[in-house]
Amino acid sequence: MVKFGETHVLCTASLEERVPPWMRNSGRGWVTAEYGMLPRSTGERMRREASAGKQGGRTLEIQRLIGRSLRAVVDLEALGEVQITVDCDVIQADGGTRTAAITGGFVALHQCVSWMEARRMTTVAKAVKDHVAAISCGIHEGTAVLDLDYAEDSAAGTDANFVMTGKGGIVEIQGTAEGEPFSQEQFDELMVLARKGIARLVDLQKMAIG
Amino acid sequence: MVKFGETHVLCTASLEERVPPWMRNSGRGWVTAEYGMLPRSTGERMRREASAGKQGGRTLEIQRLIGRSLRAVVDLEALGEVQITVDCDVIQADGGTRTAAITGGFVALHQCVSWMEARRMTTVAKAVKDHVAAISCGIHEGTAVLDLDYAEDSAAGTDANFVMTGKGGIVEIQGTAEGEPFSQEQFDELMVLARKGIARLVDLQKMAIG
Amino acid sequence: MVKFGETHVLCTASLEERVPPWMRNSGRGWVTAEYGMLPRSTGERMRREASAGKQGGRTLEIQRLIGRSLRAVVDLEALGEVQITVDCDVIQADGGTRTAAITGGFVALHQCVSWMEARRMTTVAKAVKDHVAAISCGIHEGTAVLDLDYAEDSAAGTDANFVMTGKGGIVEIQGTAEGEPFSQEQFDELMVLARKGIARLVDLQKMAIG
Amino acid sequence: MVKFGETHVLCTASLEERVPPWMRNSGRGWVTAEYGMLPRSTGERMRREASAGKQGGRTLEIQRLIGRSLRAVVDLEALGEVQITVDCDVIQADGGTRTAAITGGFVALHQCVSWMEARRMTTVAKAVKDHVAAISCGIHEGTAVLDLDYAEDSAAGTDANFVMTGKGGIVEIQGTAEGEPFSQEQFDELMVLARKGIARLVDLQKMAIG
Amino acid sequence: MVKFGETHVLCTASLEERVPPWMRNSGRGWVTAEYGMLPRSTGERMRREASAGKQGGRTLEIQRLIGRSLRAVVDLEALGEVQITVDCDVIQADGGTRTAAITGGFVALHQCVSWMEARRMTTVAKAVKDHVAAISCGIHEGTAVLDLDYAEDSAAGTDANFVMTGKGGIVEIQGTAEGEPFSQEQFDELMVLARKGIARLVDLQKMAIG
Amino acid sequence: MVKFGETHVLCTASLEERVPPWMRNSGRGWVTAEYGMLPRSTGERMRREASAGKQGGRTLEIQRLIGRSLRAVVDLEALGEVQITVDCDVIQADGGTRTAAITGGFVALHQCVSWMEARRMTTVAKAVKDHVAAISCGIHEGTAVLDLDYAEDSAAGTDANFVMTGKGGIVEIQGTAEGEPFSQEQFDELMVLARKGIARLVDLQKMAIG
Repeated sequence: MVKFGETHVLCTASLEERVPPWMRNSGRGWVTAEYGMLPRSTGERMRREASAGKQGGRTLEIQRLIGRSLRAVVDLEALGEVQITVDCDVIQADGGTRTAAITGGFVALHQCVSWMEARRMTTVAKAVKDHVAAISCGIHEGTAVLDLDYAEDSAAGTDANFVMTGKGGIVEIQGTAEGEPFSQEQFDELMVLARKGIARLVDLQKMAIG
Repeated sequence: MVKFGETHVLCTASLEERVPPWMRNSGRGWVTAEYGMLPRSTGERMRREASAGKQGGRTLEIQRLIGRSLRAVVDLEALGEVQITVDCDVIQADGGTRTAAITGGFVALHQCVSWMEARRMTTVAKAVKDHVAAISCGIHEGTAVLDLDYAEDSAAGTDANFVMTGKGGIVEIQGTAEGEPFSQEQFDELMVLARKGIARLVDLQKMAIG
Repeated sequence: MVKFGETHVLCTASLEERVPPWMRNSGRGWVTAEYGMLPRSTGERMRREASAGKQGGRTLEIQRLIGRSLRAVVDLEALGEVQITVDCDVIQADGGTRTAAITGGFVALHQCVSWMEARRMTTVAKAVKDHVAAISCGIHEGTAVLDLDYAEDSAAGTDANFVMTGKGGIVEIQGTAEGEPFSQEQFDELMVLARKGIARLVDLQKMAIG
Repeated sequence: MVKFGETHVLCTASLEERVPPWMRNSGRGWVTAEYGMLPRSTGERMRREASAGKQGGRTLEIQRLIGRSLRAVVDLEALGEVQITVDCDVIQADGGTRTAAITGGFVALHQCVSWMEARRMTTVAKAVKDHVAAISCGIHEGTAVLDLDYAEDSAAGTDANFVMTGKGGIVEIQGTAEGEPFSQEQFDELMVLARKGIARLVDLQKMAIG
Repeated sequence: MVKFGETHVLCTASLEERVPPWMRNSGRGWVTAEYGMLPRSTGERMRREASAGKQGGRTLEIQRLIGRSLRAVVDLEALGEVQITVDCDVIQADGGTRTAAITGGFVALHQCVSWMEARRMTTVAKAVKDHVAAISCGIHEGTAVLDLDYAEDSAAGTDANFVMTGKGGIVEIQGTAEGEPFSQEQFDELMVLARKGIARLVDLQKMAIG
Repeated sequence: MVKFGETHVLCTASLEERVPPWMRNSGRGWVTAEYGMLPRSTGERMRREASAGKQGGRTLEIQRLIGRSLRAVVDLEALGEVQITVDCDVIQADGGTRTAAITGGFVALHQCVSWMEARRMTTVAKAVKDHVAAISCGIHEGTAVLDLDYAEDSAAGTDANFVMTGKGGIVEIQGTAEGEPFSQEQFDELMVLARKGIARLVDLQKMAIG
C-alpha cells in the first residue's frame, strides 16, 4: 500500500509462467500492469468499470504507461519466459494516482524479482537494473509546484508527469496544457522541480525495499 | 473497512438523487449494492472483471443478495426518491466474503441514512427498521462450524449462508451441498449455530455505529 | 417438454466429447446447464437476452443452480471426460420456472446417461446415483402453499426453493423474504410441505423415465 | 406454432405503445421482428447467442428480412404510433426456418392487428392490406424442388427464397449459388415453382385466420 | 481504389497462411471479406462502428455477400490452406456501395491470386475461374434504371442487386420492394438491364487487370 | 486528405447541434476527435476494430490527444452549444500517424469554423485563436531526427511527439524511451528540432487554408 498524502494505491505483483502469445519462444519475459479505481475512491462515486462492461480510455492509457515505465528498468532477457503483472488499485484518490502507481508498482515489482532471484529463477544477479519513479507537477497560480492535490489540479493551467530512473535517465515525459499553452521556460522549470522530487522518491523506495 | 479474520472488505455507501427508471414517480427510494474483488485479493491472481469486459455470474449473484438483504431492513418509502449504492470491495479474501459484505454493508448504509436523518431528508425518524447481518457456516469433518476459512471451505461437504435481522427474523437462507446431499438434522444444527453467530455480529454492529 | 400447470419448459441434454479447460486430463466429466426464456413466455414481452448482448444476473444465477443440482446426483468420475449440457428453455411461464427446469432437466439428463450406459460409455452401471427434483413454495396470506402461480408469487411474503434427492437428502435450500422477514416456525412449515411435494415429483420422474 | 414438416417455429406478436426513436411524432407505426433458434433445435447443439454475447450475422440478416416482408403488407399509417414486435423462435429446425418464420409471423401479425381493429385502434378497417408468405426452393440433382429439407439443402447447388403477397406481387427475391453459378432458365423454373407454393401457403394462412 | 461515379471504395486483398478453425487440415483455402464505411463517407456523419462496439446487421450482411460472391469464382482447392481477406472500405458513398465493393474486390482478389501464381503457390494455372461483378438497379418513376444514385435510390420503389460471372452465370440475386410489391414483368426487365451492365463492368475489370 | 511522405490521413470535420450530456446548458461548444486505421493501411493487415468489438487502448489514447490538441486553440464559448467531430482515418501509414492527424485535423476544423463564421454562427470574429500542429521525432543511431518513417521508428531509442501552436506555445509533450532511458541533453535537442519542424507545418497549414 503506497500513500502519497491522501492518495492511497494498493500495488501487488503476480508471477505467471506464461507470456503473451506474441512473445512465446522468445526466451524473454514480460512486465505488464493493470490499473483500477474503486468506485468510491473519489469524492463523487464513479461508475464501476466491470459493470460498464469495459475499461475506459483513461484506464487503458494509464495501464500502458505503468507497464512501459516498469519495463524500462528490467532486464527482460534475464527473467526467462514469465510474466509479472503489477496490479495498482486506487483505494482513495486525491491527485497523482498514475505517478503513485508507478512509484509504488516499482516496489512491488522489485520484491517479486528479488523473490525470483533468491530462488535462482533469473539468469543474472540483478534483473532490476535501476530504480524508476514518477511525479506529477503543474503550474498553479503562476508557480511551478509538485504533487498537486485534486483541487489544485483542476485549477492548474498545466499538468505534467515525469518518469525517471535512479540514475537520472528520462523514461517518459508527458506535459499537457489544460486551457492556455505553456512556454518553454515554464516547462524547463517543471523539469528541474520534477528531478528533485524523483530523487526523494527513489530514496523512499530504497528504504521500503530495505 | 470490515475485517473478519483474514477477510477484509471495504464498504461504502453513496447517495444519489435519482432512482432506477422503473421506480420514477413512485415516491419510494432504492438500495442497491455492487461487489468486486481486487485481482490479488485471493492467493492466485484472478482476472480483473473490468478487463474481461463483464461481471461474472458469481459477482452478479452476490450483488443481488447484498442488495436484497439490505432492503429488507430499510423503510424505502421513508427515503423519498433517492438511491443508495453500497459498494463492497474485497481487498483480501479468506472465505465468507459475501456475508462480510452484508454485515459491513449494513454499517455503511446505516451511517448514510443517519446522515440523511440529521438533515431531515427522511419522512420518519428511523428509516432503518432493524439490524441485518449474515454469516456463513458449513459441515467440516462431520461437525457444524462457523466462519470457515478458505481451506476448510473447499473441504466442507456443505456450505450455508444465513441472513437474519437483529430481532431474529430470517431474510435469506442459502444452503448448498458440495458433493454429498445433507440431512434435515444437519441443516437444523447449522441454523442454531448461525443464529448465535449473527447475534454476536449485531452486537459488534451496534458498537461500530456507536 | 415439462409442463407444471401453465409453466412449460423444454429440456434437452447434449453430449460433447470435451470438458471445460480447467478439467482437462482429470479423467472426470462435467454437467452444466443453460437457461433461457422466450421473449413472449411471460405476459409482458421481455427483452431478448441475445439482442441485449448479455445474459442478466437472474439467468446466470438460475443456470448455476440447475447445474449444481444435477451434478449432485451424478457420478462424474464414471462419465469419463465428456460434458453434458442441459438446455432448459421456458416456452411459457407462470411461476416456478427454475424448479421446473431442475425437475425436467433431470429427466433429460437421465435419458442421456442411459444412452451412454447402453453404449458402455460409462465405467459403472448406474452413473446417475439418485433422483433430484425441485419445488418452490411460499407463504400466501399467512398459509404455506406449494407451487405458487405468478399472481400469488408476487403477493407472497416469502419465496423458497428446495432441491432434494429421491432419498430425501437436501441439495439446495433458498429462502428469501420479499418484504417482511419470516420466522423459524414458518420456514419449518415450508420444509415439510416441500418434502411432500418433491416425493410426488420423483414419482412422476420415475413414470417419465419408465 | 407453425410446423412445416420437421421445422417448428413459434411465432408471437407483441404490441407496444412506443416506436423507435427515429419515428417519434411521425404518426406512423412500425413492425419489427426478432428471430432466435433454441440451441438444440438443430441436430448438433449450437451455441446460445445470449451466452455468446451477441447475435450473429445470420440472425440479424433474417430478422431484417422478416421485418421487411411483414411491413410490405401493412398500412403503417393506419396503426398510429405503436410498434408490433413479431418474435419467431425456432424450436426444431429442418431447413427453411426463415421462410417458415415469415409465413407464420404473418398469422401472428394478422391476429394482433385484428385485435386492434376490434378495439378501433386503427384508422382504417383493414390495416393488413394483403397476405404475405415465403417459400424456399433449390436445385437438387438437376431438378427444381420446393421446401428442401436440411440434407437436400446442403447438397443443393442453388438456394432461393421468395416472398410474395396473396395477389402475386413480389416482395423479396434472394437467389444464391452455393458453388456453381446457375443459369437464367434455372432461375425462371424456380420462380414458377415458388409462385405455386406460395399460393398454397396463402390458402393455409386463410384457414388459420379463419 | 474503385470509383463508380461519386461512390469510391478502397479494395485490398491480404494473404494469410492460416484458415478458419473449421477448415483446418481440409487442404482447401478460403476467401473472406470485410466491409466498412468511414463515418463521413455519407452526407450525414454516421456513428463509427468501432466506437459503437459492434458491426451492425447491414455491415455483416454485406460482408457475407461479398465473400460469397468472390468464392463463387475461385478454385478453393487450388489455393492450398491459405486465407485471402478482401477489405472493402467506403471512402465516399453515393449509392451502390455493396456492388462496387464486389466489382472492385474481384480486381484486388485477382491481383492477389496472380501474385501467388507467379510464385507457384497454387496447384493449377488459373485458380480464378471466371470474372464476377455486381450491379444495382431499381425502378425509378416507372422506369427500370441502372446505378441509382442515393437520391434516386431513396425514391425507388424497388431495389435489386445482381451478381453475375463473366460467362453469364448468376451468383446472387436480391430484389426487395421498398413499399409496393413489384411484378414479374418489372423484375424481368431489371434482369435484362443488369446483364448488360455487368458485361460492361467485366470489360472494365479486364482493362484494370491488364 | 493530408499526406506526409507515405503517411496519408483523411481528415473531416462534422458539425452537430448537440453537445455531450455533461455540457448541456453550459452555453459552450465542444471539439472531439475520432481516429481509425484501415486494416490494410500498414504493411501487415491489422484486425478491424469494428469486428474486434472495441477500440484498442492505442486508438482511445490517440483520439483523446487529437481532441485535446484541437481544443487548445478554439474559443469554445464562441461556438455556442454545438459539437464539432473531427474524424481522422489513416488510409496508408508509415510512421507519425497521430501527428499527421493533429496537423491535418486542424485544417478540417478551421474550415468548419470558417463555414460557421460565414453564417454568423459564432459570437466572435475568430473562434480559432491560433494554429496548432504536431510533429514526431526521435533519436536514430545517436542523431536527433524529424519524421521517422516506420523502419526508423522501430529502431529508434526514443520517440517524442510535440504539439505546439503557431505562436510557439506548447500544448502537449510526450517523450518515451523505448528501451534505454534518454538524457536531458538529448531531450533538449529534440525540442529544438521539433520547434523548427512545427513552424514549417504551420506555414503549410496557412497555404492550405488560403
